Amino acid sequence: MTSILIVGAGAVGALFGSALARHGALVSVVCRSDFDIVQREGYDIVSPSLGNHRFRPHAVHRDVSECKAPPDYLVLTVKVLPGADRAELIRPAVGPKTVIVLIENGVDIEAEIAASFPGNEILSGLAIVGVGRTAAGKIHHQSMGSLNLGRYPSGNSPAADRLAAAFEAGGIGCKVIDNVVTARWQKAVWNATFNSISIMGGVLDTATILGTQESRAFVRAAMEEVCATAAAAGHPQHPKLIDQYIAGTLSIPAYKTSMALDYENGRPMEIEAILGNTVRAARKHGVVTPILDALYALAKMIEAKSSARQ
Amino acid sequence: MTSILIVGAGAVGALFGSALARHGALVSVVCRSDFDIVQREGYDIVSPSLGNHRFRPHAVHRDVSECKAPPDYLVLTVKVLPGADRAELIRPAVGPKTVIVLIENGVDIEAEIAASFPGNEILSGLAIVGVGRTAAGKIHHQSMGSLNLGRYPSGNSPAADRLAAAFEAGGIGCKVIDNVVTARWQKAVWNATFNSISIMGGVLDTATILGTQESRAFVRAAMEEVCATAAAAGHPQHPKLIDQYIAGTLSIPAYKTSMALDYENGRPMEIEAILGNTVRAARKHGVVTPILDALYALAKMIEAKSSARQ
Repeated sequence: MTSILIVGAGAVGALFGSALARHGALVSVVCRSDFDIVQREGYDIVSPSLGNHRFRPHAVHRDVSECKAPPDYLVLTVKVLPGADRAELIRPAVGPKTVIVLIENGVDIEAEIAASFPGNEILSGLAIVGVGRTAAGKIHHQSMGSLNLGRYPSGNSPAADRLAAAFEAGGIGCKVIDNVVTARWQKAVWNATFNSISIMGGVLDTATILGTQESRAFVRAAMEEVCATAAAAGHPQHPKLIDQYIAGTLSIPAYKTSMALDYENGRPMEIEAILGNTVRAARKHGVVTPILDALYALAKMIEAKSSARQ
Repeated sequence: MTSILIVGAGAVGALFGSALARHGALVSVVCRSDFDIVQREGYDIVSPSLGNHRFRPHAVHRDVSECKAPPDYLVLTVKVLPGADRAELIRPAVGPKTVIVLIENGVDIEAEIAASFPGNEILSGLAIVGVGRTAAGKIHHQSMGSLNLGRYPSGNSPAADRLAAAFEAGGIGCKVIDNVVTARWQKAVWNATFNSISIMGGVLDTATILGTQESRAFVRAAMEEVCATAAAAGHPQHPKLIDQYIAGTLSIPAYKTSMALDYENGRPMEIEAILGNTVRAARKHGVVTPILDALYALAKMIEAKSSARQ
């Protein structure tokens, strides 16, 4: 029976873990903040597509070191934050055959893990899901709920296919893609732009960000810098991507990005994974990105203020 | 006896008016929001350098049209905001010999007035003063208290000298300068940068804005764009100006810019006068200013959100 360990089982980890557990995978979790209630009662999940249900993991750990045997898949769903050594976090549970699955935000977030575990297969996943934690152990699945998954740095694998099948069987659409890094860059075109802008003016929603012709021109110019960086990094994007993103964002009700919500709630923001790594890739490849540089400088000031406030 | 009309007698106007009234000038005011109490009781001014005193204007008007005769000097101390036609505001009180004095923020704020009153002498003034309105009719003079004054578009004049002498006699240091537009650009190097950045992240104080080496490099790069614009507009700045501004700002306790305070208090912000006019001057003179453009786009988003909130 396939064993899966979810490390950092917050909202995304719990929801995806519950889906994987539906058809027999042994899903254990490492969760620190809600450990007591999750160990006692499992997760209380409200979901329109998976149904309201209780997810009782096979085992609940407070720390990765408590895991008795390396899992077949170790799924990492923690935030990517400076100072958090994700490789050291998962090392105690990674066996020689463990497939490491990164379901996280940002670009260039795999290299550090790949370098630390050169013998292990790495899968990289992009979650498309609206899900939040409403209280300790309580997960509210609001919208969407799918995953794009691929082998890092590129290609496909039987392990990816098997995991995708388990997700699909559990009710989470999972597409295996050949170039997951290109897909990460695609997502970064939206994320690096909207997330960064959204924390200005404490905070701006998508409708305000796209509120005028001038503001849309600015968003477009910022997105063009991400596209130029992606292309220089070997991951050119579709010429219509920016149009599609702007039209798509305008077509749905105003909302706040994950970074805006983190800012409002005083939680750490993934500025480095989403924007900092984009800016560093631009510098590495000699791409001039004055708008992203400005957003990055401003975001770091806001982060410094936000940290000081806590 | 010299007659002076202060239009928009808020904190700066009341303080400066009280100084001008000290040695016999007939100082009248137009003040809308605090009209009742000012007409009844005058201004209650707390000032370390001028002393705590009550300033009873010669006449208090609710509207410029109530003025019976054109003054020798009409001193305009209103905010420069889009949609507020300052020329039409003052027109009823401007006689053929009235000297119009603009004590306001921003760059390129004189041209509109000069075009509307081609036969009148225009003086442009830069206030260096920390003063606020603490309640209706109550003015608190906190720090500094001086003025640089010059004829627009350049040069000096007997009218400027006389007004400066009246300010000096009343306790407000007033320097007559030959190129007031260059001085406006000098001030814009600080203002366009710090004011704009300060409204990000709702809001950032000067210490946060200059908190790291990277943030200081960003501020410097933004200031360099203002300097390049000023030079292209014919007003080159001293090569050490940016160093002096950064060192000077670091040397005093953290504070919030006027725009940050306006933002926090839901008041209109002088984005156009301070930053918008700078960006437009850059475009006019073919100067590339990606950081200022980004700050301007972000500031306009924040303004749109802020206006919607009211």
